[in-house]
Amino acid sequence: MVRQQLIQQIFEKRSFLCVGLDPELKRIPSFLLDFPDPLFEFNRRIIDATLEHCVAYKPNIAFYEALGPKGWETLQKTLDYIPDTHFCIADAKRGDIGNSSRMYAKTFFETLNFDAVTVAPYMGSDSVLPFFEYANKWVILLALTSNEGSRDFQFRRSSDIPLYLEVIRKAQDWGNPDNLMYVIGATQDKHIAEIRKEADSFFLLVPGVGKQGGSLKAVFENGANSEVGLLVNSSRSIIYAGQGPDFDKQSREVASMMHDEMGELINRSQYEH
Amino acid sequence: MVRQQLIQQIFEKRSFLCVGLDPELKRIPSFLLDFPDPLFEFNRRIIDATLEHCVAYKPNIAFYEALGPKGWETLQKTLDYIPDTHFCIADAKRGDIGNSSRMYAKTFFETLNFDAVTVAPYMGSDSVLPFFEYANKWVILLALTSNEGSRDFQFRRSSDIPLYLEVIRKAQDWGNPDNLMYVIGATQDKHIAEIRKEADSFFLLVPGVGKQGGSLKAVFENGANSEVGLLVNSSRSIIYAGQGPDFDKQSREVASMMHDEMGELINRSQYEH
Repeated sequence: MVRQQLIQQIFEKRSFLCVGLDPELKRIPSFLLDFPDPLFEFNRRIIDATLEHCVAYKPNIAFYEALGPKGWETLQKTLDYIPDTHFCIADAKRGDIGNSSRMYAKTFFETLNFDAVTVAPYMGSDSVLPFFEYANKWVILLALTSNEGSRDFQFRRSSDIPLYLEVIRKAQDWGNPDNLMYVIGATQDKHIAEIRKEADSFFLLVPGVGKQGGSLKAVFENGANSEVGLLVNSSRSIIYAGQGPDFDKQSREVASMMHDEMGELINRSQYEH
Repeated sequence: MVRQQLIQQIFEKRSFLCVGLDPELKRIPSFLLDFPDPLFEFNRRIIDATLEHCVAYKPNIAFYEALGPKGWETLQKTLDYIPDTHFCIADAKRGDIGNSSRMYAKTFFETLNFDAVTVAPYMGSDSVLPFFEYANKWVILLALTSNEGSRDFQFRRSSDIPLYLEVIRKAQDWGNPDNLMYVIGATQDKHIAEIRKEADSFFLLVPGVGKQGGSLKAVFENGANSEVGLLVNSSRSIIYAGQGPDFDKQSREVASMMHDEMGELINRSQYEH
């Protein structure tokens, strides 16, 4: 999906919600365990329930590969089930020397037809560049993550610039707003305004709203640009909202509430498209 | 495999060679394409040919997952084929927030029975710690990598300490020489002596000898400790040494030459175990 299509989806739907599909056998409603592929059945119902409220889905690859080959089949089926109207992110956090990154790009952009993949910056340019060789595909680069451990290295200052800002700056030599986004944790809301200045027309993928404690309002007020420029992800708060036979209804309710809040934020900021 | 077993293998065999199993359909000898699982057949013959010359194998996960579920089956079969005498490294470069890293640890230490997995440090402590929850398993943390892109962020200095050294120091609060190694590229040989001082009793996994241009002698002279403390990896130089029906014989010859060179380096340094 190209940038203009994504922006159009966001304004038509008045939502910038991304639903994280991180299913675990021990956490999904137990009645689903009778299905031949319980995690796919779970995902299918979550997708049906949330489709009208979100513009993107983000399966976290860790949850699929833990199941071996069967997990990759579940991932493939899940991806096939998501309609083309929705932006699909492989949350894989890959990154390796050039010839290996090229294989990872092949995995997520050819073997599986994702729109985007999350990439870790530690190994630098040649670990990221192979992902840009695909037309109409996106790199979403880790910059300032939502977790506690983000404090260990990402704020490390050199010439008064923290590492995460240098990642954001340097990556603008590798990609552009049509093929590059950044991961910025919602828990880092006091840094989002500064990041928006550094990357004014780039999309930010923002996890960490919900269970991790980030605020949607703070993220929007500090991070939105004239095209919204945000994809806010919620995983556990939505997918594990309920445990009964109507778990998907409860997921829909949480997604709908977030959709409403996003619609209000967009309307209130009087964006016009 | 625990540390003492690995050290014993190194001294008995007088080798610290790790063979990287990074097979690609378009690069393996074409006659193998007639086999039901060409990549496994390739790996099997490479393993048979190199077993006596190396102490470790390192499949790079990128090359398997690019093939979808079938690639994971090939990976599983390859791992099952490697005898217990050899240390098995999943070169996966994973790392995510705690609950996702926990799933990655499950993938490589439970679903697949690897001894070790390579982990990227960018997301900090809680992205690495879940991998330490497994007894007798190892984290091999990216510190100073072999590629060009290592210059982008890893040498970035703060309080006069480059990032890679801070990664090495901080990680010593998370793990110890029995469960933590570092990835140090062979192309970085002028920094290895300094790294050895910072991490005197830790194993270093050293890729980049061979095709990438690193020198085995320089790595040993600057990086060995009294227990050798090195696993030097070679992938393409060994596995793609030949293309004919006897490709495995040519791989054996390259591995044997490296084994001889390693034996001489160990003998010359007069280590005693």
